[in-house]
Amino acid sequence: MNDRLLHEDRLFPADPGTRNIARDLYAQVRHLPIVSPHGHTDPRWFADNAAFSNPTELLLAPDHYLYRMLYSQGISLQQLAVPDRNGVTHTDPRAAWHVFAEHYYLFRGTPSALWLEHVFAGLFGIDRVLNTASADYYYDIIDTALQQAAFRPRALFDAFNIEVLATTESPLDALDHHRTINNSGWQGRVITTYRPDPIVDPEYEDFEASLATFGSMTGENTSTWQGYLNAHRTRRAYFRSMGATATDHGHPTAQTADLSVSECETLFAKIRNSNVSADDAELFRAQMLTEMARMSIDDGMVMQIHAGAHRNHNRWLLAHYGRDKGADIPQRVNFVDGLKPLLTTLGNEPELSIILFNLDESTYARELAPLAGHYPCLKLGPPWWFFDSPEGMRRFRELTTETAGFYNTVGFNDDTRAFLSIPARHDVARRSDCSFLARMVAEHRIRRDEALELATELAYKLPKKAYRLDQHTSSDGSPV
Amino acid sequence: MNDRLLHEDRLFPADPGTRNIARDLYAQVRHLPIVSPHGHTDPRWFADNAAFSNPTELLLAPDHYLYRMLYSQGISLQQLAVPDRNGVTHTDPRAAWHVFAEHYYLFRGTPSALWLEHVFAGLFGIDRVLNTASADYYYDIIDTALQQAAFRPRALFDAFNIEVLATTESPLDALDHHRTINNSGWQGRVITTYRPDPIVDPEYEDFEASLATFGSMTGENTSTWQGYLNAHRTRRAYFRSMGATATDHGHPTAQTADLSVSECETLFAKIRNSNVSADDAELFRAQMLTEMARMSIDDGMVMQIHAGAHRNHNRWLLAHYGRDKGADIPQRVNFVDGLKPLLTTLGNEPELSIILFNLDESTYARELAPLAGHYPCLKLGPPWWFFDSPEGMRRFRELTTETAGFYNTVGFNDDTRAFLSIPARHDVARRSDCSFLARMVAEHRIRRDEALELATELAYKLPKKAYRLDQHTSSDGSPV
Amino acid sequence: MNDRLLHEDRLFPADPGTRNIARDLYAQVRHLPIVSPHGHTDPRWFADNAAFSNPTELLLAPDHYLYRMLYSQGISLQQLAVPDRNGVTHTDPRAAWHVFAEHYYLFRGTPSALWLEHVFAGLFGIDRVLNTASADYYYDIIDTALQQAAFRPRALFDAFNIEVLATTESPLDALDHHRTINNSGWQGRVITTYRPDPIVDPEYEDFEASLATFGSMTGENTSTWQGYLNAHRTRRAYFRSMGATATDHGHPTAQTADLSVSECETLFAKIRNSNVSADDAELFRAQMLTEMARMSIDDGMVMQIHAGAHRNHNRWLLAHYGRDKGADIPQRVNFVDGLKPLLTTLGNEPELSIILFNLDESTYARELAPLAGHYPCLKLGPPWWFFDSPEGMRRFRELTTETAGFYNTVGFNDDTRAFLSIPARHDVARRSDCSFLARMVAEHRIRRDEALELATELAYKLPKKAYRLDQHTSSDGSPV
Repeated sequence: MNDRLLHEDRLFPADPGTRNIARDLYAQVRHLPIVSPHGHTDPRWFADNAAFSNPTELLLAPDHYLYRMLYSQGISLQQLAVPDRNGVTHTDPRAAWHVFAEHYYLFRGTPSALWLEHVFAGLFGIDRVLNTASADYYYDIIDTALQQAAFRPRALFDAFNIEVLATTESPLDALDHHRTINNSGWQGRVITTYRPDPIVDPEYEDFEASLATFGSMTGENTSTWQGYLNAHRTRRAYFRSMGATATDHGHPTAQTADLSVSECETLFAKIRNSNVSADDAELFRAQMLTEMARMSIDDGMVMQIHAGAHRNHNRWLLAHYGRDKGADIPQRVNFVDGLKPLLTTLGNEPELSIILFNLDESTYARELAPLAGHYPCLKLGPPWWFFDSPEGMRRFRELTTETAGFYNTVGFNDDTRAFLSIPARHDVARRSDCSFLARMVAEHRIRRDEALELATELAYKLPKKAYRLDQHTSSDGSPV
Repeated sequence: MNDRLLHEDRLFPADPGTRNIARDLYAQVRHLPIVSPHGHTDPRWFADNAAFSNPTELLLAPDHYLYRMLYSQGISLQQLAVPDRNGVTHTDPRAAWHVFAEHYYLFRGTPSALWLEHVFAGLFGIDRVLNTASADYYYDIIDTALQQAAFRPRALFDAFNIEVLATTESPLDALDHHRTINNSGWQGRVITTYRPDPIVDPEYEDFEASLATFGSMTGENTSTWQGYLNAHRTRRAYFRSMGATATDHGHPTAQTADLSVSECETLFAKIRNSNVSADDAELFRAQMLTEMARMSIDDGMVMQIHAGAHRNHNRWLLAHYGRDKGADIPQRVNFVDGLKPLLTTLGNEPELSIILFNLDESTYARELAPLAGHYPCLKLGPPWWFFDSPEGMRRFRELTTETAGFYNTVGFNDDTRAFLSIPARHDVARRSDCSFLARMVAEHRIRRDEALELATELAYKLPKKAYRLDQHTSSDGSPV
Repeated sequence: MNDRLLHEDRLFPADPGTRNIARDLYAQVRHLPIVSPHGHTDPRWFADNAAFSNPTELLLAPDHYLYRMLYSQGISLQQLAVPDRNGVTHTDPRAAWHVFAEHYYLFRGTPSALWLEHVFAGLFGIDRVLNTASADYYYDIIDTALQQAAFRPRALFDAFNIEVLATTESPLDALDHHRTINNSGWQGRVITTYRPDPIVDPEYEDFEASLATFGSMTGENTSTWQGYLNAHRTRRAYFRSMGATATDHGHPTAQTADLSVSECETLFAKIRNSNVSADDAELFRAQMLTEMARMSIDDGMVMQIHAGAHRNHNRWLLAHYGRDKGADIPQRVNFVDGLKPLLTTLGNEPELSIILFNLDESTYARELAPLAGHYPCLKLGPPWWFFDSPEGMRRFRELTTETAGFYNTVGFNDDTRAFLSIPARHDVARRSDCSFLARMVAEHRIRRDEALELATELAYKLPKKAYRLDQHTSSDGSPV
């Protein structure tokens, strides 16, 4: 039993009594539909519904969890068939797969191994360990399967029992794929999310050009503060018409601001300059969180703030391979002072809902749970990125529950580009939450009937409610 | 068994062997008298010994743990019968109780639920879950009970087996209730604590007026630095005569200072001005911790420092409902640099004893345990406020014991305004400590006989010793 | 069973199933040779091979873990026979031992107790608890044993099954003892480590005089930047010839810098001045980490950075007893920004290897694991100092494994001056790691065969590889 890739009791507590409780809780939630309110899958997959190309291009080359670990052990991205800055790949996919297989042992104890083995065993029916000896066996099985109809994106979406899947797009995205999906007659619910970082962060690549495009897309004069805000309103409405119920904001800090209109106008003039100072850029991002919150009060979109990643820490890698290549490092975040300007002006607004994500676990108990356990507009997103893992989820519940309870959290986000791993990730979350609840029952801190209710809330009901996915919207974005 | 409100094994580890050890340890300490050396109960209760009014006014409206959670889920303080800034309540107590009952499920997994269920089941004999259906049942049982003699404050104090209870008062408090208690012939030991924040913190409401009152109460010229210090000495002596063995200092940071007398005089002149700068206010608070430490060396009072709360974070709530309404948020604290000025001048004084409290758990292992595990004047207070909970207590022991040991900690504080919850809180602490000790025994990290001794130390002996409650004092405060 | 000093199952998880797995894993590693790549034993012991003097001088007076705790409870260092600043001891060793025995209960729950009891029971065969009643019994047994040949340093080294032991020396050390050992014909491998803090940190005592000595030892002009760097190169080569495979850098922060040569020259001129500013001193230390990294790329020495101790926090103690007397306090560290200058210039160099140590556990998951899980030059040292303990080791694995895996860690360091405790410390580490692995197996997060491999890696293979101890070197330091 112990040697199978995918053990039926994986992630459950070892104590037999507690494990039995966890099994009972999990039995109730394991087959619930998947609600995926935040992620980074490519809508083109569901628009075109073309076959995935090969195991390396699907599973290895886009997964920064995998190649950051391999890179840390001296393996070059080139060997792994990761495209360089110009999109060029220098390695044969099967050769790259062999490098991966040879070093697969490096992932022992990581969530990547849990997710991959769920995909290998659960989706492709493999029950051998991945290593040099089995590399071709794996490659061939997966490669063959990917050509079958059952492994096309829409078929997998249905097989995965996904009720709704949100992707994430820039305001500059025309959302053609979403339109294609909506018009295709396929019943899968794939919605977009408004992520304005490229036109909110003055330090983003090509910011000035993006501002100009933003203006031309919306017919607004984005060289003025009011025109710029109007352009946001226009695009938000369009995103709403493509199903969006949420916005998303990836900021290095949690700083917000509450400037006067004339201060905003002055600041906007400064940040449009390509020589923007770091302080002005930070202040502008800070102010824009407050502006986005105001628009959320108007249009009902839930706000997500993902704060605290120091992006592209490895300058050489950025120069040669570009963004999002596993070189982002978390940093300390101060939510108490950072959020204060926004909360002082809008924190008691009944219509506002902000979901906070964070990479600094020291804030869970000290800042986030007390804030979410008081302000009606704040909820806690699930453990993010490095902490989307069994230990990360356990710490999240242990550190937040006693102050914020369960009902100020919003269930799980898979937050992934790795489409095939979505069921695995939700399964890890469900098992982890059931294990936490089981321990609370075993220690008589909650009753069994409460745990049963909570397991369903965490797995299914809370994400729908928090992301307002239970409020059906018409094609123009207005509630029906 | 599992469905009873108050399970005999609650909070004990699930592993059967470890649980048996925990049971044995707990059996030894469960009935020990309660020593409550720090809290916020109202001395008037014990002076007047009047019946408590009704369930809402007793259990709900004063408990910021409860209404901060309810407020976070969109329930207004008005609905909960919380008095506004002018002391006015707008809701019928039974109606407020219904709102509470309807949303009681929000407290699943929180210490509030543990405390309340101990009160409901243990004190009022209720064994149904609180919800909308049982709201009136609860209200009627509790309301009726409160009119009985057995539920008067002094009767409960005796029934709770409280050996000593410390309240906390401002230097401006005349301590009339304590005098009444002392003269009443009742044997209950209710003592005061000197908490000078309103006249030490230049940013406190009405600071200037308080300074003037401080002068008139003491006959000192509190417009001079020396007169101001003398006024403290005078009031400290009076507090000593009302049983005080400790002072308490609630500061936003742990900053201390060690200025010369002339620097102090200059600073004192500045902070008496209503336009005091934030830096001057901080420096004055910092200096006053050192001054209070000097006076403690002279008069033997133990110092408590509660550092790190960002008070009244929600400005709207402060304006409409006033202080202490569940909108205080912890913030990062730096004890290493902050305490250094005080420790450099007084840290090796054999008579000085300072108990540190903190809301930034990242300092437990990094700063607090190493400081308390070296300086003879420092001890660690129990987990405070948000961390007065099973997980919070477990983390405290796990993070401090290996460096500071058990004997640099001081047992439990209930630190509560909720008088009825005092036995529940001490019970949670005793169960949590016994569980931690049981795990150490089960893992052969301490022996069973050591655990038995330690359980009694943590539950009873250490608080008496740390707060010098075993040194009986005469009515003028001098040791007898 | 439970009352024996040294239980066979100590530190294993209480759950019977998990414990059985831990036992199996431990059985495989318990007798593996000890690799001790970083520590502070005195090479004179192995050079002279003289008998140790007495229990107090061997076990108590040099162990700052012990006397920091005793000092925190009001016991003076004088009573404990700790030498004062002038090296004078004022207390009879047996009297000091009595004080220690009387207060030995203070160490309940600390790693010191685990280590001492391993030494008492495992090495001296004592099976009574240490207290006042047994103080003389202990003293006599240990004192008698120390006079026997089997308790001489080399005999113990062999009996402890130490494969290699690294000491740590200043560049100003002539390494006479290492030369004596090498020429003695004894087979024990005792190597040195290059720890240049006294000539890298401008705030170190006697820095100017040290610089001058550094010049005269190496024949370089250490009043110039280039001469100073050359002197390092010369001494590094000499240390290599005495077996060194690593350098070590104890810095208050993790700050690095990457200045131009002319900036370095200017800075070097400033820091040679005795009135060096704190900022210049910090910048110089920062730059020197980068210089040391460059030299490591040239000569192959592994770099260790021990960051984050606020040294000599107790000024009175420093004045009367000197450095390293248990008054060092950890402080917050920022690795993300601090290491960036070094990593930007050298972070992708394949020959560079830097092992990071840290006293701020909040950085484990937030900064260290993500950095080591990406940069090929970074590895994570084991839990250091205050965290060299069962709870500390558990937290380290729980907080780093999911992001950095096991293979970006380097096994255990005992890092001790307490030679007799070396087997105890390695045993605690092996038991702790086996317990962590056992839990992962019991929860089906890794397979049993993986855990068996990992147990051996953590206990033996990884330290040899990480410290390049498997690369035999000739007497002139070049690989053979």
